[in-house]
Amino acid sequence: MKRSNRLVSLTNFFLENPRQHRNLPYFSEKYNAAKASMSEDLDIVDHMFREEGLGYLKRTSGSAGGVMFIPESTYDNGINFIEKLCKRLEDPTRILPGGYLYMSDVLGEPKTVREIGRVFASKFSNTDIDVVMTVATKGIPLAYAVASFLDVPVVIVRRDPKVTEGSSVSINYVSGSSRKIQTMVLPKRSLRAGANVCIIDDFMKAGGTITGMVSLLDEFNANVAEIGVLAEADDDEEDRVVENYTSLVKISDFDLVSKEIRVLPGNYAAY
Amino acid sequence: MKRSNRLVSLTNFFLENPRQHRNLPYFSEKYNAAKASMSEDLDIVDHMFREEGLGYLKRTSGSAGGVMFIPESTYDNGINFIEKLCKRLEDPTRILPGGYLYMSDVLGEPKTVREIGRVFASKFSNTDIDVVMTVATKGIPLAYAVASFLDVPVVIVRRDPKVTEGSSVSINYVSGSSRKIQTMVLPKRSLRAGANVCIIDDFMKAGGTITGMVSLLDEFNANVAEIGVLAEADDDEEDRVVENYTSLVKISDFDLVSKEIRVLPGNYAAY
Repeated sequence: MKRSNRLVSLTNFFLENPRQHRNLPYFSEKYNAAKASMSEDLDIVDHMFREEGLGYLKRTSGSAGGVMFIPESTYDNGINFIEKLCKRLEDPTRILPGGYLYMSDVLGEPKTVREIGRVFASKFSNTDIDVVMTVATKGIPLAYAVASFLDVPVVIVRRDPKVTEGSSVSINYVSGSSRKIQTMVLPKRSLRAGANVCIIDDFMKAGGTITGMVSLLDEFNANVAEIGVLAEADDDEEDRVVENYTSLVKISDFDLVSKEIRVLPGNYAAY
Repeated sequence: MKRSNRLVSLTNFFLENPRQHRNLPYFSEKYNAAKASMSEDLDIVDHMFREEGLGYLKRTSGSAGGVMFIPESTYDNGINFIEKLCKRLEDPTRILPGGYLYMSDVLGEPKTVREIGRVFASKFSNTDIDVVMTVATKGIPLAYAVASFLDVPVVIVRRDPKVTEGSSVSINYVSGSSRKIQTMVLPKRSLRAGANVCIIDDFMKAGGTITGMVSLLDEFNANVAEIGVLAEADDDEEDRVVENYTSLVKISDFDLVSKEIRVLPGNYAAY
């Protein structure tokens, strides 16, 4: 196969298979090309991935050596994306009764969701993560987007047990903002002891839901590796029970009367 | 920029931006390359995308002419994927009390979910679709996967209204298998009249949930463009109220006593 053809095929391969290790003979055989040519191909792909801020090819030498694609968008790409997102969310028609912000349209765009996933996955790139966990409903697409870049599975916590998932572990927790007792359920099969878990959710006020997921992980003897929330509410900071999280945007100065709202970059921007 | 670099960049561009039209000058400018060279690049990318069964570049000539990537996996790729999926689902340890099948692990794999999305999107490639709709919870990742290949947004129907979504339209429907009256809710803002909607769900028994979504679309004066379900139960076929759907797998011969289960390709295989 000609180099130009190989480059198209290789680029697709790496983008579809992030963090999957392959040795050089795998590619030599697949493309029927000399190892030296393959190595040059990989240099070109690596160069362009870095150039475009997509990540890089991690090469290892020796007998078990090979290559894998690490998706790692740059900090600047992340900030650019976040600033555009803030502008979109500041639209006053998004204000709903009760002081909530309508975000379903933004969260309904696969491309936006994918970018959110890319920013989190890049930020968590050096953390050892075995699984991404979220709670139904709105965190689900975000969790899959993060997991797709990290090449790990997703587990979904529910508010109610479902017959189609078998025996479950459930916990009660106090919702931070409403102070109500709520329940969370995770099927027994879905998480192994000792797993390193990245918690992802769309929104954090006082942090009760996240705290609930942390308690649930305790029950499974699993570890909290990272916590990522798309948006956090600024006003509940003194009540906040969660520490060491990453937020992409922060909703502040939410004025229901004047219909004004300010959305600023979250603590991601502080890194 | 050299051709080899351009090919890596172009491949990434098309894979990340399916169904987005760009004219040739856009690329000539971006890469500072002559139109003739760009045209050759596009030929190479198109050739390899077809070769690997990923889809093709749709070229249009004339003053408004340009190119867009249509992701369209081949029928054979679809069948290969489905047959492997059937094998995985036939594992007797998946049988749960009540005759349900545990699929959460499979649906928790971002790569598997993406492939399911690719198969549906390829099948529906020539249908005019404005939006993908699903009902919480398990259909959500599948809906996003389909939508990402079709480059359209996702709307999520809920079983209960939520304060963070504003005013909603709700309907009651009869669950096909349990014959219970249930409720479905969709925020008013999330769908415009006349929209062509692709309904996606993970599982269909008698089809009550799908019928509910169809009724909901009626309330919005929207159209059902396609219906796709990952798995259908074989045993409820005489009660089935839904027609014109695409299923990838069909669960039949579910024997709770002998712990035997057969999973066959769904009606996708009949095309």
